[in-house]
This record gives sequence, C-alpha cells and structure tokens, in this order.
Amino acid sequence: MKVLVIGANGQIGQKVVRLLHANEQYTVRAMVRKEEQLEKLKNENIEAVYASLEGTVKELEAAMKGCDAVVFTAGSGGSTGSDKTLLIDLDGAAKSIEAAENVGVNRFIMVSALQAHHRENWNENLKPYYVAKHYADKILEASSLDYTIIRPGGLTNDAGTGKVDVATNLTRGTIPREDVAKVVVTSLTEEGTYKKSFDLLAGDKNIEQALKTL
Amino acid sequence: MKVLVIGANGQIGQKVVRLLHANEQYTVRAMVRKEEQLEKLKNENIEAVYASLEGTVKELEAAMKGCDAVVFTAGSGGSTGSDKTLLIDLDGAAKSIEAAENVGVNRFIMVSALQAHHRENWNENLKPYYVAKHYADKILEASSLDYTIIRPGGLTNDAGTGKVDVATNLTRGTIPREDVAKVVVTSLTEEGTYKKSFDLLAGDKNIEQALKTL
Repeated sequence: MKVLVIGANGQIGQKVVRLLHANEQYTVRAMVRKEEQLEKLKNENIEAVYASLEGTVKELEAAMKGCDAVVFTAGSGGSTGSDKTLLIDLDGAAKSIEAAENVGVNRFIMVSALQAHHRENWNENLKPYYVAKHYADKILEASSLDYTIIRPGGLTNDAGTGKVDVATNLTRGTIPREDVAKVVVTSLTEEGTYKKSFDLLAGDKNIEQALKTL
Repeated sequence: MKVLVIGANGQIGQKVVRLLHANEQYTVRAMVRKEEQLEKLKNENIEAVYASLEGTVKELEAAMKGCDAVVFTAGSGGSTGSDKTLLIDLDGAAKSIEAAENVGVNRFIMVSALQAHHRENWNENLKPYYVAKHYADKILEASSLDYTIIRPGGLTNDAGTGKVDVATNLTRGTIPREDVAKVVVTSLTEEGTYKKSFDLLAGDKNIEQALKTL
C-alpha cells in the first residue's frame, strides 16, 4: 500500500513517515513544501514530493497520483494567524479531499482534534482553529472516500505506550504524538475504521484491539 | 412573509431592513448584537431581536422562530482579523443554516461574494475571507433549504439604479449596496431563484427581469 503523507514535516507527520518507511507493508511518499525538507528526506531514501496546500487542486492530484491512501496531518500551527488556519487547515484539507476523489485515492485519514464535532466543547482560545477542523471533517464525511477521522486530545512529546482509548466522545485528556502516529498507521488497513470518526486519548487498550471496538 | 435579517446593522443589512419595512408584503425582524442597535430599531417601530452569531444554534433558533425566511448579510468586516472571519462568516453562517433547518424556516438568502465558488478567481488579499464564504455557501447548497446565494461584485455607496446583471459567472465589476439590497428583497418571493447561486453586478436589466433569466 502506497501512502501519501500530507504535512510530512510536522511533528506527527515525521513520525508517521518513519513508521511507514520502516514497515514492509507500506511505501511512503512524503509531501513537503520546502526544498530543504525534500532533500533531507531523499537523503534518507524516502520518496518525497514538493507541493503546497495553498496551491491548486491539480498540484495535489499530481502529488497523490499512484498512491492508495492519503494521510492528512498538516496544520498551520500556533505561530501563524487565523488567515493560515483558513488557507491550510480548512481550504488545504478540502482541496486534498477533492484531489483524492478526482484521482481515485479512496482511503483518506484525517488527523483532527478532540471534540471537533461538538461546538460546545471547543476550547475558547482555540475556537477559530476548531471551526476550521470542524468543517474540514464535515467535508470529508460528506465525501465519497473511505475516510477515518482521528481526533486526538492534547498532544505531548512523551514516549508512546501503545495503549489508547478511542470512542465517539471522550472527555479532555492527552496522548503522546508517537501513539497518534501509530494509530494513524494501524488504521490504514483496519477496515473497521472506514467511515468512522473518533476521539483518541492515552488509555489502557492495545491500539489494534481499541480500533476493533469502533 | 416574515423575514429575519441577520446582520441588520451592516451596510447592506440596514438597507434590506428599510426596504422590507416599507413594503406591505413583508414584516421584518432585525437581528442585532448590540443593545443600542436594538433600541434604535425599536424607536423606528421595527421589530428587533438580540442574538449573537458567536452564540449557540439554540439562540439563533429562538431569533428566527415564527419567521418564513432568513436573509444572512452579516460579515465580520475588514477591521477584524481572520479569527472573526472563521467565527462569523463561516461558523455563524453554518449555525444560522442549521437553526433554519431545525426550526423549519425554509427560505434562506445568503449574501456572498463574486466568484466565491471559483478558487482561481479569489482576490489574493482577501483569500481567507473567500475561503470562509466558499464553504458557508457550500454548506447552504448541501442543506435542505430553499436557498438563494447572491454573489455581488465590489460594493459601492453609489445610489442604486435598479439595473443589474446576473449570471453564474461574471467578470470583476461593482454594484451599489442599494441594488444588492433590492435584489435580496426581490429574490425573496421569486421562485426562479430557489436553489440558485449567482454573481451580481451593475448592468442593464431591471432586477425583476434579470432574476427571471436564472
């Protein structure tokens, strides 16, 4: 299975790329938006493609041609303003979904945010970000794709434990980025996660088992 | 026909409210978000209701209960940042659509922006605003409502001429706010505009005739 990782230079994206690269079951193509990121990946023998989420749908189609799945884990991040939230987290995501539909890449995994589907639970300070994630998720759910929307809680850089909790609704908590990356990779071929959206936190179930409960 | 105007204190909204108030065919309810705006309207014998687009869907449902139509002409405006664009122009619009569906107010007119449906024609400086309008419009088109999406070109404060041009795609141009307000009011009962979205510019056709060509 060949997987395009959008946001491959992000904190979760880098981990997803390494996990896929180390796994014989997968071939990974990392999508990045800077020349030096491209070079760095190529030096590690990882296939990389240059494309911008602020570019055209056609550009994204070209980047995902020949892939079987897309992982969207890009985000404009906390250091830019809400203009980039609109352009990247919302429009960039929607264009990626459109491109996947156009090219026929049917498997699409979205990294979203805990409770993005419930307005009343949005963190007041992050509300604009949640608006963007909410509608990107809705667009994906309305698409024809075999999607999985993973909504992790507060992200930490702690070492992963491989133990998680998944459900449609979980109350606030955290999860190591390493475990989010593992959930992304494990979901790819777990058909029980197709057309599902779920909250994700650190917990006490093995990832494989947890995903089978969905 | 009773019409809720959301964004009643805006530049187009004020004109829509006055046109509806002066027309025996309609009763108008103006939705505003400041106490002094409410008082001002009441002093003119115009029904006004206080509600915020940053509030809950329930609050918006209460504001539109008993109405037959909603006109959405709110906008966060150029003086606030993209955070408000996300909260008002996108989420506020989507919540209004949700509220209208929940309460059964089937007629919904959206004031959008020229070419909001074509990413390649978005003004580079206003791109985040166009993203918000684009997805608000898409959400409305995917709703069950009898919508009309009016996409005016550059807005001016010139006196209205009552002459316009309407089509799915028009090239850049301007239109007086007064004529946009007239098109909104004329569209309300023109069934030929149901489930239609169109660009709007100053032109040479009477508004009634122009709307019948859609």
